[in-house]
Amino acid sequence: MTEQITLAEYLGHRLRQAGVGHLFGVPGDFNLTLLDHLTKVPDLQWTGSPNELNAGYAADAYARSRGLAALVTTYGVGELSAFNAVAGSAAEDVPVVHIVGSPSTAAVTQGRKVHHTLADGVFDRFSTAFAQVVVHQETVTADRAAEQIDAVLLAATTHRRPTYLSIPMDLATLPLDAGRLTTPLRSLSDPAGLRDLTADLTRRLTGATKPVFVVGHLVPRFDLSAAVLEAARAANIPLVTSLAAKGAIDASQPLHRGDYAGTMVDASTAALVAEADLVVELGTVASDVLTGFFTHRVEDVRDIHFSATRAGEHEVLFADAVRVLAQVCATVRFPDREYPARPPRTPVPVDPDDALTQESLWQTIETWLPSGTAVLADTGTAFFGSVRMTLPDDTVYVGQPVWNSIGYALPATLGLGLAEPDRRPVLFVGDGAAQMTVQELSTIVRAGLTPVVVLINNDGYTIERALQSPKAAYNDIAAWDWTALALALGGGLVSTRTVWTNGELEAALAEAPTDEMVLLEVVLDMFDSPPLLQELAGRNGGGAQ
Amino acid sequence: MTEQITLAEYLGHRLRQAGVGHLFGVPGDFNLTLLDHLTKVPDLQWTGSPNELNAGYAADAYARSRGLAALVTTYGVGELSAFNAVAGSAAEDVPVVHIVGSPSTAAVTQGRKVHHTLADGVFDRFSTAFAQVVVHQETVTADRAAEQIDAVLLAATTHRRPTYLSIPMDLATLPLDAGRLTTPLRSLSDPAGLRDLTADLTRRLTGATKPVFVVGHLVPRFDLSAAVLEAARAANIPLVTSLAAKGAIDASQPLHRGDYAGTMVDASTAALVAEADLVVELGTVASDVLTGFFTHRVEDVRDIHFSATRAGEHEVLFADAVRVLAQVCATVRFPDREYPARPPRTPVPVDPDDALTQESLWQTIETWLPSGTAVLADTGTAFFGSVRMTLPDDTVYVGQPVWNSIGYALPATLGLGLAEPDRRPVLFVGDGAAQMTVQELSTIVRAGLTPVVVLINNDGYTIERALQSPKAAYNDIAAWDWTALALALGGGLVSTRTVWTNGELEAALAEAPTDEMVLLEVVLDMFDSPPLLQELAGRNGGGAQ
Repeated sequence: MTEQITLAEYLGHRLRQAGVGHLFGVPGDFNLTLLDHLTKVPDLQWTGSPNELNAGYAADAYARSRGLAALVTTYGVGELSAFNAVAGSAAEDVPVVHIVGSPSTAAVTQGRKVHHTLADGVFDRFSTAFAQVVVHQETVTADRAAEQIDAVLLAATTHRRPTYLSIPMDLATLPLDAGRLTTPLRSLSDPAGLRDLTADLTRRLTGATKPVFVVGHLVPRFDLSAAVLEAARAANIPLVTSLAAKGAIDASQPLHRGDYAGTMVDASTAALVAEADLVVELGTVASDVLTGFFTHRVEDVRDIHFSATRAGEHEVLFADAVRVLAQVCATVRFPDREYPARPPRTPVPVDPDDALTQESLWQTIETWLPSGTAVLADTGTAFFGSVRMTLPDDTVYVGQPVWNSIGYALPATLGLGLAEPDRRPVLFVGDGAAQMTVQELSTIVRAGLTPVVVLINNDGYTIERALQSPKAAYNDIAAWDWTALALALGGGLVSTRTVWTNGELEAALAEAPTDEMVLLEVVLDMFDSPPLLQELAGRNGGGAQ
Repeated sequence: MTEQITLAEYLGHRLRQAGVGHLFGVPGDFNLTLLDHLTKVPDLQWTGSPNELNAGYAADAYARSRGLAALVTTYGVGELSAFNAVAGSAAEDVPVVHIVGSPSTAAVTQGRKVHHTLADGVFDRFSTAFAQVVVHQETVTADRAAEQIDAVLLAATTHRRPTYLSIPMDLATLPLDAGRLTTPLRSLSDPAGLRDLTADLTRRLTGATKPVFVVGHLVPRFDLSAAVLEAARAANIPLVTSLAAKGAIDASQPLHRGDYAGTMVDASTAALVAEADLVVELGTVASDVLTGFFTHRVEDVRDIHFSATRAGEHEVLFADAVRVLAQVCATVRFPDREYPARPPRTPVPVDPDDALTQESLWQTIETWLPSGTAVLADTGTAFFGSVRMTLPDDTVYVGQPVWNSIGYALPATLGLGLAEPDRRPVLFVGDGAAQMTVQELSTIVRAGLTPVVVLINNDGYTIERALQSPKAAYNDIAAWDWTALALALGGGLVSTRTVWTNGELEAALAEAPTDEMVLLEVVLDMFDSPPLLQELAGRNGGGAQ
């Protein structure tokens, strides 16, 4: 007779198998039994957030690093508060399983008018809403529970997409057969697809003279940066990096030819892609921001695109496709060639006594930024300023260039910090963005993390001022005392400093303690925006998208 | 030739006609043109919030008072952040029109992979999700724009439900015929329904000897408290009040026999309803909390239920049905009778030097609470403690007893304060709830409001401790310095005080300044919960709902 464990524990063990060590979320009365039993699973740490949107953002960043994250919310009020975060995980291909504690089977069967519903006896409204953004969803039933749990976890990791698992409160303790846990969850590529892909790639690579790899966001999502680089090095093929995969390939690698966003950011990468006779698109997405507003080379028959579950016309999973690519690359070698010249980078002169500007800020940060950090850049001037930096080797960089939800990066610091305990997080966030999700500063301190938080205080939504109506009152925000706030949220365990000049910033960075959170308030002019944002605003026709 | 105005201005004028004077929301690139033109409309004030959930909560409270509110968000990232608030408006029958600035018609037609989408060329995911909670929705098209705007506004006010209006950014400035604004928006009851309802109510009232009115939340939603009371007084019919309509009828009215929540709260109201031979359910909803977990008298043929669009079996709008009821009541008069005895209320002795308890807290607040305020009670001990108070006459009371989303009441203070400028808001909120939405303290101060904020600091989610697993770690929250936080958010324009004892609370209430926000941090034991919450937890079978 096999051992029986509760459904909650079964789920917990499956999460552990997938590399999940932390649970994000907020308790609520429909998930309490679930939490009581989930948290019994060894090495599965509950990390409660002040609200569900923040928890969802934290889970997203955790999943980017660990390959899966679990977000636990309660029915209705909780799950819906996290909707934006889960949709963001969908837009950015991030595998978060959204676990919702829901009303009891009896309440649903009898159509009871319970709280956290519209009091109309209808219980599938919210799962139906989430079906618009998740790749797979299940509402657990007693007869198929283990199978359903396995399905949502496997779908999330296979597609690198969010999934949704609703657990009626009475089923959280349903006894399940623990023996099933000995069978690992895995998806397999179609064997014929693997064979055909091998032939296809061999044909393409042997027929090409000027191939290039475009490294997309799925490469870091599947933790395949090293494998892709190895393939490129074996065959002597240059790589360019989507802004969504910033940092995936070390800048010091000679074959790494820079960041590619159509003709934006770096004209040399656009030229390299334009002249290629084979482009291997490794998990890229041709969204507006990532293509410099559709100025990228559009894929044609010479090119092949790898997605999570396909490579070109072949049904092959991403990791397998990269493996096949590496095998084929080991059999070919392209001669060295001339690459388009990289644009020269001339530092602007910086006077220590001058007020900080967007230009001097990012230049000073770039000089300071040590290797081995985890950089998080919020949408807005933080992203469009920092993404132009050349990163030191061994730097993780997390932004949200497709979904672009301001406020994401602050809670993401919690998730990434817990996922990557050996990297110090460095957060760049604007004041308008930080106001969205500021609570999470307290969770970050409570979790023992010690990030450097660079808070750009420029009196409101500067990204919107850059796009349209710079002086519109709706872009103004309430003035907060940021340093006092950080101390109030962090129980005093925060080092705070406000800087106005280049010299003050340099000194603050040099003197920042390493054993506690550092909040560095950087005061900038509200109309100053990074060059990339100005160019993007121009390409976007002043918001006419 | 009639005057042409922009679509945004047309919408603004329609909002003004419906009593809307403030716009809640957050700007985003897809709504900037809309905001540029909406804010040109005289007496329509933009009130930006730090995030969309908070804005949605503020709009909800505003709509409860004004009969309509407008929430403006941007596509995807903005609208989805407000999902919980909009669903709450649906659950609580609150008319909020959710106005979403969306991608251009050209982007949609061409299926462009724009930011704030899943980069898949699909643009109706989020409106489809919202269809699960709104009573009507429209995505504006050039040929039907005015008609569509009118439809969403009229549906919201008729049903007292949220609606959804998506405005592609290029259509915000579409020229519309201003002449249409001279035709007011109104819904009409079915004339036959009105006639039949008159006959039905006449028959019922003349046949009854012990009728009672149950005042539900739709009475204050439709601003008909005075009309209902007048009807009751004309016919000498007693009223009891749902907890969802707390405060709608003054406690001093002899015919007001108290609050009714099944056999919970006040056994005398349950007895009064049980013995009635006619119950007029005036916009009630029989949800779990509001019925003391289904211990209410279930409606039968002797009873008649008024909803937003029906009265019994007749298609009559709520306001018309109440008017008919008043007309019929003017023709009958019931003799005085004995009512079930109200439960005696014996004050507990309070020693000024003793530590505050839930019991002494609410007793002291009840003694202090002046007439003419707007009370907001967040879900949790704040609601279940305060709802037992007898309110002074002329008190507005706002809770969320159906949706029960913690964190609602703090941003709701912004909305209610702006909607009711002559009432001082008095907010009761727990620490766990306040952490959800704390940003809005800054917006409240910025808007010039001066509420009394009673922040119950009891180290976490006490409502959940009362329901299940009192010592579970997931019910602990980060410790914040609440008074320092309020000052940091409020630009110093906040009077703060922390109290531990009965005497300190009394003094703080007596000495609270009236010209600025007062944050009163009340420290309570984490395991102490109001008697009503304990009873509710028992009825709920320790969370077994």
